[in-house]
Amino acid sequence: MLQTITTFLDGFGLLVFATSGALVASRKEMDIVGFALLGTVTGIGGGTLRDVLLGLTPVFWIENPTALLVCVAVSCVVFFTAHIPQSRLRLLLWFDALGLALFAVTGAERAMLAGAGPVAAVTMGVITATFGGMIRDVLGGESPMILAHEIYVTAALLGSTVFVGLVTLGVPHEAALVSGFCAGFALRGAALHRGWSLPRYRPRGISD
Amino acid sequence: MLQTITTFLDGFGLLVFATSGALVASRKEMDIVGFALLGTVTGIGGGTLRDVLLGLTPVFWIENPTALLVCVAVSCVVFFTAHIPQSRLRLLLWFDALGLALFAVTGAERAMLAGAGPVAAVTMGVITATFGGMIRDVLGGESPMILAHEIYVTAALLGSTVFVGLVTLGVPHEAALVSGFCAGFALRGAALHRGWSLPRYRPRGISD
Amino acid sequence: MLQTITTFLDGFGLLVFATSGALVASRKEMDIVGFALLGTVTGIGGGTLRDVLLGLTPVFWIENPTALLVCVAVSCVVFFTAHIPQSRLRLLLWFDALGLALFAVTGAERAMLAGAGPVAAVTMGVITATFGGMIRDVLGGESPMILAHEIYVTAALLGSTVFVGLVTLGVPHEAALVSGFCAGFALRGAALHRGWSLPRYRPRGISD
Repeated sequence: MLQTITTFLDGFGLLVFATSGALVASRKEMDIVGFALLGTVTGIGGGTLRDVLLGLTPVFWIENPTALLVCVAVSCVVFFTAHIPQSRLRLLLWFDALGLALFAVTGAERAMLAGAGPVAAVTMGVITATFGGMIRDVLGGESPMILAHEIYVTAALLGSTVFVGLVTLGVPHEAALVSGFCAGFALRGAALHRGWSLPRYRPRGISD
Repeated sequence: MLQTITTFLDGFGLLVFATSGALVASRKEMDIVGFALLGTVTGIGGGTLRDVLLGLTPVFWIENPTALLVCVAVSCVVFFTAHIPQSRLRLLLWFDALGLALFAVTGAERAMLAGAGPVAAVTMGVITATFGGMIRDVLGGESPMILAHEIYVTAALLGSTVFVGLVTLGVPHEAALVSGFCAGFALRGAALHRGWSLPRYRPRGISD
Repeated sequence: MLQTITTFLDGFGLLVFATSGALVASRKEMDIVGFALLGTVTGIGGGTLRDVLLGLTPVFWIENPTALLVCVAVSCVVFFTAHIPQSRLRLLLWFDALGLALFAVTGAERAMLAGAGPVAAVTMGVITATFGGMIRDVLGGESPMILAHEIYVTAALLGSTVFVGLVTLGVPHEAALVSGFCAGFALRGAALHRGWSLPRYRPRGISD
C-alpha cells in the first residue's frame, strides 16, 4: 500500500516535471532532441542527485529505464501539443508546483528509508524537489524559479517538514505523504495565485 | 584487444576535450592555472559524472591520476601554442566534435560493463559525451554548445545508439565501438560543416 | 589531536563559507529562506562533492546533521546583522579567502585518509575549496570568483600542495595542515590586498 502510493506520487512527479522541462524547451523553440533532453533532465534530475548523495548507486534509472522512456515520451507529446494550452508559462508554473510538492515528500521518504534522520530527510526532500527545476532553468536560460521572490523553496520545505514531522509523531507514512504534499502544494499554489512572498532583506545605507 | 581499444579511445577523448577546454581559456585570456582548471574539468568531467552515477567510486582519476596529469600537461602546451592555429574557434569546435563522438561510445561501453541495460547505456553515453563540454562552456562563459541549434546532442545519441545497438545484435565490441564513433563524428562533422539542424518547435499564435 | 584539529578547521571553514553565502544573499536582497539556502549550499557544497567523488556516501551531513543546522543558524544571524559591517563585499571576500584556505587542506586530508595518492589528494583539496563558492556565485548571480583574474584557484592549489607535500616528506599531519592553511591564506590574502594576478594569455593577431 505504502509502496503503491510512493510509486504513484513519484511517477506523477516525473510526468509533471518532464512536462515542465519540455515546456521550457518549447519557449526556447528547441528541436525534438532538445525537448527530450530538457524533459528528461528535469524529470530525473532531483531523484538522481538524491540517490547519489544517499549512496544509492547505480542511480534509479540505471536499474530500471522506465523513468527515462516516460520522460522522452512526455517530451515528444509536448513537442506536438504545446501550442494547444492558452498560456504555456502558466501551465509550466503549475506543473512545476505539482512536481515540487510531490518530490518534496517522496524525496524525504526515500531518505528516511535509507536511514537519514529528520533534519537530513527534510533537506533531501527540498533538494529532490528543487534540483531538477534548477537544471531546467539554467540549461534553458530561464531565470531560476529557485531564486524567484515568490515563495518557492519555502513550499518544498513546508511539505517535507510536514511529512517528516508527522512520521516522527507516529502518523502512518501514507497519511503523512498525502498531508505533506497537500501542505506544500497549497502554499506554492497560493503564492502563485496571490503573489505571496516572504519579507526580504533590506540593506541600510550600504550599497556594495 | 578490447581493453586496448577502449583505453586508446578514452585517452584520445581526454586529450581532445582537455585541448578544447584550454582553448576556451585562451579565448577568455585566462592565466595558466585557469587553463589547467578548464582543461582538466572538460577532460575528466564527463567520465567523473558517469562513474558517480554508476556507483564506480572512488572515481577513475582518484585511483590513477594519469588522466589529471595529461589534462594539465595538454593545457600548458595550449597556453604556449594557442596563437599558432589560424582559427582557435574552428579548432575548438572540431576537437569538441571528436571528444563528443569518442566519449559517446566509451561512456556507453563502461555503463554496459557495469551492468546497465541498453536504454541506460545509451543515456550514459550521451551524458559522458556532453557533460564535460557543458561545464567548460558554463565556467568559461561561452554560449553552451549543448543548446546550439546545430545537431550536437543528436550526434552523441546516434553514436551511442549505434554502439549499443550493434553490441545487442551480437557484433564484437571492438567493431561496435569504431562504428559508433564514426557515426557520431560523421553526423557532428557534417552538421558543423554544413550547418545542419533539426526542425525546431514553432509556437503558433502564443508568445509567453 | 589530529582529529581535533581537522574537526576544528573543518567547522571553521563551514562557518565562514556559510557566512559568505548568506552575505551574497544579502547583496541580492533575498528572504530568510534564500539566506538559509545560499548559506547551506556554500557551507556544505565542497565537502559534499568531495564525499561523492571519494565514494564516502551517504555524504557527511546525512550521518550527522550538525553541519546543516550550523549553516542555517549562521544564515539567520547574518539576515539580522548584515547591515552592521561597513562593507559587506569586503567581508565576503575575506571570509571566502579563509574558507578557501581551510577546505584546501581538510579536503586533501580527507582524500588521503580515503586512500588517494598525492596528485588526486591535491586535486580534491582544490575541488573542496572552490566548489561551494562556485555554486554560491552561480546561484546568487555573482560573477564567479573562480574566474577572477586575481589569484584564487592558485591559492587553494598552493595550500593543498604544501599540505600534501609536507605529509609526503614525513611531517606530522597537524603541522602540515596548519602550514598548508597558512600558505594558502597568505597567498589569497596578499592577492586580495595587493591585487596580485598571474600573467594572462595574450592572443597574437587573432580574434575569434
